[in-house]
Amino acid sequence: MNQNQEIQKLVDGVLKRNIRFIAKAISFVENLRYENKKDFLQTIFSYTGNAKIIGITGSPGAGKSTITDKLIKAFRNNNKSVAVLAIDPSSPFTKGALLGDRIRMQNHTTDPSVYLRSMASRGALGGLSQATKDAIKVLDAAGFDVIIVETVGVGQSEIDIVKVADCVVLVFAPGFGDEIQAMKAGVMEIADIYVVNKADRDFSQKLFREISNIINLSLKQPKPPILKTIATESFEQSNIENLKDEILRFLSNAKTSNNFDKKRKLSVEYELVETLTSVLINKIMLKKNIKEFFDDKSIDKIYKKELNPYEVIDKIMEAI
Amino acid sequence: MNQNQEIQKLVDGVLKRNIRFIAKAISFVENLRYENKKDFLQTIFSYTGNAKIIGITGSPGAGKSTITDKLIKAFRNNNKSVAVLAIDPSSPFTKGALLGDRIRMQNHTTDPSVYLRSMASRGALGGLSQATKDAIKVLDAAGFDVIIVETVGVGQSEIDIVKVADCVVLVFAPGFGDEIQAMKAGVMEIADIYVVNKADRDFSQKLFREISNIINLSLKQPKPPILKTIATESFEQSNIENLKDEILRFLSNAKTSNNFDKKRKLSVEYELVETLTSVLINKIMLKKNIKEFFDDKSIDKIYKKELNPYEVIDKIMEAI
Repeated sequence: MNQNQEIQKLVDGVLKRNIRFIAKAISFVENLRYENKKDFLQTIFSYTGNAKIIGITGSPGAGKSTITDKLIKAFRNNNKSVAVLAIDPSSPFTKGALLGDRIRMQNHTTDPSVYLRSMASRGALGGLSQATKDAIKVLDAAGFDVIIVETVGVGQSEIDIVKVADCVVLVFAPGFGDEIQAMKAGVMEIADIYVVNKADRDFSQKLFREISNIINLSLKQPKPPILKTIATESFEQSNIENLKDEILRFLSNAKTSNNFDKKRKLSVEYELVETLTSVLINKIMLKKNIKEFFDDKSIDKIYKKELNPYEVIDKIMEAI
Repeated sequence: MNQNQEIQKLVDGVLKRNIRFIAKAISFVENLRYENKKDFLQTIFSYTGNAKIIGITGSPGAGKSTITDKLIKAFRNNNKSVAVLAIDPSSPFTKGALLGDRIRMQNHTTDPSVYLRSMASRGALGGLSQATKDAIKVLDAAGFDVIIVETVGVGQSEIDIVKVADCVVLVFAPGFGDEIQAMKAGVMEIADIYVVNKADRDFSQKLFREISNIINLSLKQPKPPILKTIATESFEQSNIENLKDEILRFLSNAKTSNNFDKKRKLSVEYELVETLTSVLINKIMLKKNIKEFFDDKSIDKIYKKELNPYEVIDKIMEAI
């Protein structure tokens, strides 16, 4: 079987929503560089764009995985198929902690309309790696109605999630000293829906009020909703059904107000620029006459101030 | 006065460590794009590389600014000149909170050997913006012995700080629920020195133990030191003098073990690639035959699946 046939087989498997092929396809886009996965992505492109992409983000330990777990149930009750991409920061230390969260979700794994996948964030440049964006395309092409992307940490990935998600849910929990700080630090503006989880805990009411105040300060119109949840409670008690309704309400409002299309077009543009940049830089780095500017000798010279990096850039630009 | 003279005047002012010119030069590199600040950066390049760059990072509210404030005093006692770059996340919400921290530092502003500057993080790609790196070069050329770069938030900027700092201090404080989680989430590995601030608070001992345990798990050799501080106490009580000594010890060890040079050469390489990438992409975007691929009509076509972005990339690469 030649490569084109291999790829066609992979594509067919994904389009049939065959779990084994989906897993294979995600590993495929996760591990290959652009040149090698391009044909595959190009083939599935026309099958993408139908899934609703929901970002769940917030501080580690806020209860994102538990909320995601219940959200799966809520969407399944509406007969929607759900895929979850949990983005784990790349670190030897995370594995334990986060795999623990994953395991809690395993009770869905017998349901063929639910797919769970944990991915490393990688991305030396931070934020969501291209691999993540390509994995979303695979799940989208596979015909999942809802794709939940769960990101960990108060950082770039939370800012980036806006570029790929149609609706961003920001999860808080009492007892996280830096929550309000983090909101002040700009994370605030990215969310479409706010959740105060662990609402049975002390200070949750205080946290709820503080967040409400900051929402009222924000320029966003309409003001984003804020919900209290107890994700560890029974589904009926958790209030996640309401969260699902708020998500659907936001999405339909976004559709009518055209914000939905605007947002997606923006992410199309972002990704086009990002892809072009990486393709370009990779191509250039391979050129022999460019490579030598980045070898140890040249770097050593710059470090010793014998070579001026700005002249190097000029030389490279000329060489291209 | 022509542009070259303007730049020479700016350079001279910076080399004389004239505060007014330093401020002007930082705004200069902060606001201009590469093409326009290149000549200036090229001129100061040979005067850079002498300052020791110290990164102070950790969750918002951990007490980084208070520690920085005391560190300034500690280095001044050793007759070292100190510049501080406080990187504030770009957000309308931050201003209040973070400027508050800045004000606490104002008691140094009468000392000509201390310079304080607050910068927005910007950087759509997250992490430390090029402007920050260029501002460090200005302060370096100005002959400050120590440059403290203070970054906020558990995110990309903390990972990035490693690329520019000779020594990274990671600050924790009790009552920040996600601290340990954050460490597990990979922030842990970036630090050369750990600080448990607010050591008079409840649970600080527990936090200290937990961090020690994780340090013992890490593969780093030698194991990074961990200190308790109470930055809000008097200088003598704060234990910041010890922190300064640990920083100096780390730097001299790094020098002898060659890690210092290795680290700096790596950051030279990082920056060379980053600069080339941005110069390249800017240049290409200006080309008329490329620009049109990014106009609304083209983006709209891709969004409607009438145009395949992978073909677009191919076309652009051909056009170059």
